[in-house]
Amino acid sequence: MARPVIAFLTDFGTKDHYAGTVKGVVLSICPEAACVDITHEVPPHDVMAGALELAAAYKYFPPGTVFVVVVDPGVGSARRPIAAEAGGYRFVAPDNGVLTLVFRETPPTRVVELMERRYARPTVSRTFEGRDRFGPAAAWLAKGIELSAFGRTLIDWQTLNVPEPIVTDEEMIVEVVRVDRFGNLVTNVDRRAFDRFVNADRIEIAAGTATVGAVVMTYADADPGALCALFGSSEHLEIAVNGGSAGERLALGRGARVTISQLNQEA
Amino acid sequence: MARPVIAFLTDFGTKDHYAGTVKGVVLSICPEAACVDITHEVPPHDVMAGALELAAAYKYFPPGTVFVVVVDPGVGSARRPIAAEAGGYRFVAPDNGVLTLVFRETPPTRVVELMERRYARPTVSRTFEGRDRFGPAAAWLAKGIELSAFGRTLIDWQTLNVPEPIVTDEEMIVEVVRVDRFGNLVTNVDRRAFDRFVNADRIEIAAGTATVGAVVMTYADADPGALCALFGSSEHLEIAVNGGSAGERLALGRGARVTISQLNQEA
Amino acid sequence: MARPVIAFLTDFGTKDHYAGTVKGVVLSICPEAACVDITHEVPPHDVMAGALELAAAYKYFPPGTVFVVVVDPGVGSARRPIAAEAGGYRFVAPDNGVLTLVFRETPPTRVVELMERRYARPTVSRTFEGRDRFGPAAAWLAKGIELSAFGRTLIDWQTLNVPEPIVTDEEMIVEVVRVDRFGNLVTNVDRRAFDRFVNADRIEIAAGTATVGAVVMTYADADPGALCALFGSSEHLEIAVNGGSAGERLALGRGARVTISQLNQEA
Repeated sequence: MARPVIAFLTDFGTKDHYAGTVKGVVLSICPEAACVDITHEVPPHDVMAGALELAAAYKYFPPGTVFVVVVDPGVGSARRPIAAEAGGYRFVAPDNGVLTLVFRETPPTRVVELMERRYARPTVSRTFEGRDRFGPAAAWLAKGIELSAFGRTLIDWQTLNVPEPIVTDEEMIVEVVRVDRFGNLVTNVDRRAFDRFVNADRIEIAAGTATVGAVVMTYADADPGALCALFGSSEHLEIAVNGGSAGERLALGRGARVTISQLNQEA
Repeated sequence: MARPVIAFLTDFGTKDHYAGTVKGVVLSICPEAACVDITHEVPPHDVMAGALELAAAYKYFPPGTVFVVVVDPGVGSARRPIAAEAGGYRFVAPDNGVLTLVFRETPPTRVVELMERRYARPTVSRTFEGRDRFGPAAAWLAKGIELSAFGRTLIDWQTLNVPEPIVTDEEMIVEVVRVDRFGNLVTNVDRRAFDRFVNADRIEIAAGTATVGAVVMTYADADPGALCALFGSSEHLEIAVNGGSAGERLALGRGARVTISQLNQEA
Repeated sequence: MARPVIAFLTDFGTKDHYAGTVKGVVLSICPEAACVDITHEVPPHDVMAGALELAAAYKYFPPGTVFVVVVDPGVGSARRPIAAEAGGYRFVAPDNGVLTLVFRETPPTRVVELMERRYARPTVSRTFEGRDRFGPAAAWLAKGIELSAFGRTLIDWQTLNVPEPIVTDEEMIVEVVRVDRFGNLVTNVDRRAFDRFVNADRIEIAAGTATVGAVVMTYADADPGALCALFGSSEHLEIAVNGGSAGERLALGRGARVTISQLNQEA
């Protein structure tokens, strides 16, 4: 069997022992696993931010990878712990919508509720299910236990309300959904939807007080320090500054609106 | 032999190369090791904070795990470098008390001074013993070298003065010892000591200007945004806000006092 | 074959999924690799800072380690992606000088341009070559593909202008090139050049408004809280505070000048 990969995406941060402790539990069950951090710095309790990071990353991992996705404001409450199979990957997560964007791209072939006690730690803390339930479940999945052995199959689950672009003939209003470490403002419109919308000779992209007139291929195609728009690594439109931070330059963050306008020559 | 696990807990931070360099040394000696970070963000030189994180994490790792614990304000000075066996685990650390809380829970079966030069790098930097002494020692332990081969057995070692709850008939005064990334204020009283103290019908927990009237089971048992008290994942009393940061709400941090008062009905 | 080690040094940060995604790609190609982070917190686009961290770390890794070095302000532009062999190690990086300090210490035996499409992802993003080009190339190198298979051999490459100490008979003016997490101010003069310069009975080291009269062996040789100078773990002169931050104390950072003066007795 190939060496199993277990990938972690949480809001645990890295200043506390939490992420390390979960890995200790995982390696106690599945010592051969390769543990990979996607990030532990999802803003605390921000399920949508976690969903976006996961969607951008998961498809670059080896088939069979088990993802431990714990952004869980309802830890210990009645929300269900689940495991899912989708696109040849496995996921363990609270049922709070954090898998919404993965499921939209790759509908799950099975979702189960994590109920089987032998695949959890003997005592499950009400405040740290990452350690006591999700970590062990991921490790047992990586060991080869079938999803169906973990609990009953679910036919519905929570789904996040994902903000969609608002489209008229002349305008498309999109939203900044992520600001990355470089200050790039990543929006919720992908290249395909953008191309479907644009039919004018020219467009104008307005973000805050600034406008950008064209879409470039990469940051360095803009002048140093200049604002630009481009399709980033996940094929979503982003506003960027070559060698700088668009977020700082424009004082914009998540939730900010970006307006794409058609400029027809007859106008 | 099972794949050895080496777990790291330091104040090195992650912006510099230090933690990675130690792993480079470790993998040069023991390429089969799985390296796991507990945290590298112990506040610089804060031995007590390191001791607390380690105590919360170590028992979730596989038997035989070697812990590299380097929070070492006295690096390069006369303080001894040590290795210890306790509870089926191995530890390498400076002899400055950073293992106090582990040893209290699990008395060591052997402690040695790291003296044997063949298990260190040929030149030991006076400012980076993590790289030149502790990392190599951990790797050789993971390779199967016996603790006794590293140096003479010690019969005493440094111990930290751990703040204890102050108890009277009516009150227990406890202290915030950790503030985690979610802003939870973790105190120095565990569930057992708390239960031993409480004999009244009701209690009141006062932290700063706020009071909490009851202990809940998990964050979500409190109203959204409400302050609550609960026993967290390490079974210590903590003050929390459901979906928020108790540290920010109360403007309290490490060292803050929390008072638990008995409220007898006849009072 | 020994287990290959792939070490990562980037400016990707850890709040986004970027570093994890590159590892997903790497493990898809070379599942047996041990992935080690040196740091992902090189300041965005700061090629010199990346070069300095790499130079301090690489020689402590096992022979054959592949280093993925991505600090790449010119991502997607005409700057060439390269791979190199030096000192028994392999490196993949943009050709922007980030390997300058390694090459100065260990001249490369071969440098090639990464051209061969079968060792990249089928579609190479113009904004995330770490994922699509550098990660895959590193994984294939770790699998045993020869450097020459990746593209044509280069005979020149970009080199950074590294600040050098300015030396007169009486003075040596050096520069702070790194401030580490402890606030130690690491300069660009190493022990050998320092020793070559000093011929006086006494020296004085001036940094900002403070002066230090002697070089100690380790932080703890200075009084608690006292300023000191010493040769740190990479054998470069640094200004430090025992138990504190020299950077904060002196309000100095990268680029600050430090002057070493000879104090001859006859003077």
